[in-house]
Amino acid sequence: MEKLESAGTYIHFETSLDPITALIEEGKYSKVFVFADINTSEHCLPVFREMLDDFSEFDLIETDPGEENKNIDFCIGIWKTLLDFGADRKALMINLGGGVITDMGGFVASTYKRGIDFINIPTTLLSQVDASVGGKTGIDIDNVKNMVGTFTLPKAVFIESAFLKTVPERELLSGFAEMIKHGLIADSAYFERLKAQRFNELPVEEIYRSVQIKNEVVTADPLEKNIRKILNFGHTIGHAVESYSLNNDKKSLTHGEAIAVGMICEAWLSWKNSTLTETELEEVKTYIASVYPAYHIKEKSFKALAKLMQSDKKNENGHILFSLLEKIGKCTYNCRVSETDINESLRFYNSIYAT
Amino acid sequence: MEKLESAGTYIHFETSLDPITALIEEGKYSKVFVFADINTSEHCLPVFREMLDDFSEFDLIETDPGEENKNIDFCIGIWKTLLDFGADRKALMINLGGGVITDMGGFVASTYKRGIDFINIPTTLLSQVDASVGGKTGIDIDNVKNMVGTFTLPKAVFIESAFLKTVPERELLSGFAEMIKHGLIADSAYFERLKAQRFNELPVEEIYRSVQIKNEVVTADPLEKNIRKILNFGHTIGHAVESYSLNNDKKSLTHGEAIAVGMICEAWLSWKNSTLTETELEEVKTYIASVYPAYHIKEKSFKALAKLMQSDKKNENGHILFSLLEKIGKCTYNCRVSETDINESLRFYNSIYAT
Repeated sequence: MEKLESAGTYIHFETSLDPITALIEEGKYSKVFVFADINTSEHCLPVFREMLDDFSEFDLIETDPGEENKNIDFCIGIWKTLLDFGADRKALMINLGGGVITDMGGFVASTYKRGIDFINIPTTLLSQVDASVGGKTGIDIDNVKNMVGTFTLPKAVFIESAFLKTVPERELLSGFAEMIKHGLIADSAYFERLKAQRFNELPVEEIYRSVQIKNEVVTADPLEKNIRKILNFGHTIGHAVESYSLNNDKKSLTHGEAIAVGMICEAWLSWKNSTLTETELEEVKTYIASVYPAYHIKEKSFKALAKLMQSDKKNENGHILFSLLEKIGKCTYNCRVSETDINESLRFYNSIYAT
Repeated sequence: MEKLESAGTYIHFETSLDPITALIEEGKYSKVFVFADINTSEHCLPVFREMLDDFSEFDLIETDPGEENKNIDFCIGIWKTLLDFGADRKALMINLGGGVITDMGGFVASTYKRGIDFINIPTTLLSQVDASVGGKTGIDIDNVKNMVGTFTLPKAVFIESAFLKTVPERELLSGFAEMIKHGLIADSAYFERLKAQRFNELPVEEIYRSVQIKNEVVTADPLEKNIRKILNFGHTIGHAVESYSLNNDKKSLTHGEAIAVGMICEAWLSWKNSTLTETELEEVKTYIASVYPAYHIKEKSFKALAKLMQSDKKNENGHILFSLLEKIGKCTYNCRVSETDINESLRFYNSIYAT
C-alpha cells in the first residue's frame, strides 16, 4: 500500500504481508524465528500464517506477555533458545506483537552473536504508532524501563491494521495516547482531527500520519541527542507513574493511561515553565480527561515518583529534564523544572477529579 | 606518540595518558567510571593514577578477573551499579584491563541507557594487539564465547606499554599468539621478524605493527561480513579448545595457548583444503611448537569440540566455516571443512608431541 523510508528501514503500510517473503529470499537467511507472546501467538499468529500461506518454515519462540516480563531473564532464555535452535548470524527474527515483543525481541536480535537481522510486525496500536519507528530496543532492569538496550534499526516494519481487530479497547486507548502526543508536539491540525475521532474506529490514514510524525522526528535525530527528545513529552512523569503503578496498584495503568496522566501534568509544567497559554492548558486537560479514566496520585507517592524520574534517560548532570509544549503543535526540550513544580503539577492533575 | 585512526576512533600509542583529560573535558561528561578487575585495580590503577595526577574524580567499579566472570550476572551487577551511582547518558566508562574488561565493559557501556561513551585502556599484550581495535564487545553465555555482544567503537583506545610490566610471562605469551596470527594472515615479513624476537622483550614498534594490521582489516569490514573473518584464523578450533579446556582441565589453557593449538590445526587444514605448502605447514608448526607448551587433545573430546565449533559465529547454514592460509602472509575465509578433516587436524597436532 504505502512505504515510508526511515533511515534505511522501510516501514510498510500494508494490506498484505507478502513483501516479507521477498525480504526473506533476498536476505538469504539461514533460519527464520518468529518471536511472540502467548497472546499474540494465539490471536495474531493465525492472521500472520494466513497472510503468508506460502511461507511456513519458521521456529516459534514464545514468551509470557506483559511489561513485567520484558526483563533480562527472558532475554537470556531467548538467547539460549536461539543457540539451541542453531541460529547463526544469518538468522532472521520476526517480532510479532506489541511493544514488549518488539523492544525485547529487537534487543535480543541486536546483541545475539553481535547482531542478527530482525523485522518488526507491531500488532497493537501502541506499538504501531510508537515502537514501530526509531530503532529503540530495550528491556527493563529492576523495573527501570528500558534501562538496557540499543539503537538498532529493524530490517523492515510492517503495519497491518488487520491485527488491530485482535486488540482490546483498553489497549487501543493506550496507543491512542501516543497519537494525541504526536499532535500536541508537532501538528495542531492533527490534534484537532483526533479530537473528532473515536479511538476504536481510527481511519488508517490517521495511524499513518502518526507514524509519519514520529519518523520525521527520529530521522532528524536518530540517537536522541536533541530534537528527538520532544517525543518524551508526557513521558517523564508518565513513565514514573507507570512504573509506580506497576509496583503498587492492583490493576496497574496501561502505558497510554500513564502517559495521559503525564501529558496533563507536563502541560501544566508547560504553562508554568514554557509558553503554553492557560486556554491551551485547559483544552489539553479537558480533552485528555474526557478520554481517559481518572487516576489518583497519592501525596505519599510523590517522593518515589521523583526518584523514578531521576533515573530517566533524558537527564543530565543530575537534573530532571522535561520536554515541554511551547504551544499546541510545538514542543521544546531539555527544560529544567524544580521538584516543587513537579509536585504542583501532580496536584493539578489530582484537582481535576477532586469533588 | 602516535595516533592511528580507526573508523572515527583514535588509537593512541602513548607514553602518557594525558590526552584522556582533554577527551573528558571535550566530552562534557557528567560522571566518569573506571571499570577494572581486582588485579588491574591493584597493579594498573596506580600506574593510571600516577599518569593522570590532575584527574582523580572517578568512581571505581571492580569485578572478579577471568573469562569465567565475563558473564551476564556480572553485567547485570554493573548496570545496576551505574544506575545506583546515578550514571546518566553523558557518563563515561573507562575500561582498564585485559580483554575480559574491555569486552564486558564495552558491552555494558554500549547497552546502558542504549549506549554511553567508553574508552579502552588495554593493559595486557593480548588486549592491546587484539581487543583494542575493531569495536567488538561481548560476554559469554553458558561458556559460549561472546555469544552476546555488539559492534560499538570506543571513543578512544590508549595503548601504553608501561602496563605490560605488570603482565606475567604466560599472559604475554598469550598475546604474542595474536601477533603471530597477524603475521601469518597478512604480512610474511612481519612473521619472519617475530620469529627472531623474544615474546617478553617485544619492541613497541612490533606491537604497533600488529595493531596496524588488525586495524586495516577491520576498517575494510567493520561488521565482519567478509574479509574481517581472516582474523579468525586459528580461532575456530582454538576457541573450541579454549572452551573445552576451561571446563575440563585443572589448569586451563590461556587464550593464546589455545590459539596456538588452533593455528597448528588450521595450518594443517590449510595444507589439506587450501594452498599452503607442506614446507610452510612445517615452518608454522615447528615455530609455534617451539614457543608454546605441548597440549594433548583427547580423542574422546573430539565430539565435544565439534559441537563447540558448531556454535562459532562465523558459521552459516549449519556449516563450520574456517579461515585458512593460502600461504604465509595471506588468508582466505568461508572455507567448508569436513568433520573428518577437523579430527585429522587434531590428530596432526597431537602427533607433534607423540613419542
